[in-house]
Amino acid sequence: MRIELWSIGKTHETYVKPGIEEFTKRLNHYFKTKWVLIPAPMHTGMFSEMELKKKEGELVLEWLAPGDFLVLLDEKGEELTSIGLAALLQKKADTSIKKMVFLIGGAFGVSQAVQQRAQFTWSLSKLVFPHQLVRLILTEQLYRAGTILKNEKYHHQ
Amino acid sequence: MRIELWSIGKTHETYVKPGIEEFTKRLNHYFKTKWVLIPAPMHTGMFSEMELKKKEGELVLEWLAPGDFLVLLDEKGEELTSIGLAALLQKKADTSIKKMVFLIGGAFGVSQAVQQRAQFTWSLSKLVFPHQLVRLILTEQLYRAGTILKNEKYHHQ
Repeated sequence: MRIELWSIGKTHETYVKPGIEEFTKRLNHYFKTKWVLIPAPMHTGMFSEMELKKKEGELVLEWLAPGDFLVLLDEKGEELTSIGLAALLQKKADTSIKKMVFLIGGAFGVSQAVQQRAQFTWSLSKLVFPHQLVRLILTEQLYRAGTILKNEKYHHQ
Repeated sequence: MRIELWSIGKTHETYVKPGIEEFTKRLNHYFKTKWVLIPAPMHTGMFSEMELKKKEGELVLEWLAPGDFLVLLDEKGEELTSIGLAALLQKKADTSIKKMVFLIGGAFGVSQAVQQRAQFTWSLSKLVFPHQLVRLILTEQLYRAGTILKNEKYHHQ
């Protein structure tokens, strides 16, 4: 199973980039992983929040393959423990899922169509984090899940 | 009210340092804030996990002033929303509390004595994060709380 990390918007900011790169490299020892940065629609100043979400959503749905298992990161989702995340990855790897996509939405969330397409909606915390920091947290947690599944020493309960 | 961020162990690692420094600088516009890095006890290889926690705990309790309001960051604590954290800061600033100390424990948690001294035990998430990343998340959340209390634009619900 491969993992793709999708994020709408800019490239990684300097303050999270080294961490994202390091954990993505490590994560690649467990699952082939890549980042897909989806540029926000052009002329965003011209669109309302709702229109922007709709446009971003259309981009995302276009890029997804029918068999992709979509995990949406959203504050309104369900929280997981690190062990729970590892179990979810294992469960999906054990089925015929070829690719898991973890999607971090735009600044105002994602469209209803994307919410409906998502097979799992995951909340990292009750706290609201900046999108750039979500990228770093997500990468570290997926790497951690890899070490949990291999019974390695990185994770302390 | 001043804020002190206490952490047991090494200096900030490269992958979180720029973010911690940036958010600490910004946080200083709302609350005078400083980091206190408590060196882990010497010759740690000679101590058991339990002895280490006890020694670290003694250091922490020695350094605390009687009036300090101690928030312990611990996975077994209570989760807060970002708004909830802002409300907690406001509530303490409104009393005679002069200093809030946010303590990130060592690799194996903190001693029972420190747990008992803590007036609030805060869990950032159901997920387990590395200590270095906890430092970054904590700083960003406190800065965010400052902007929430001042009704500034940084935080989107």
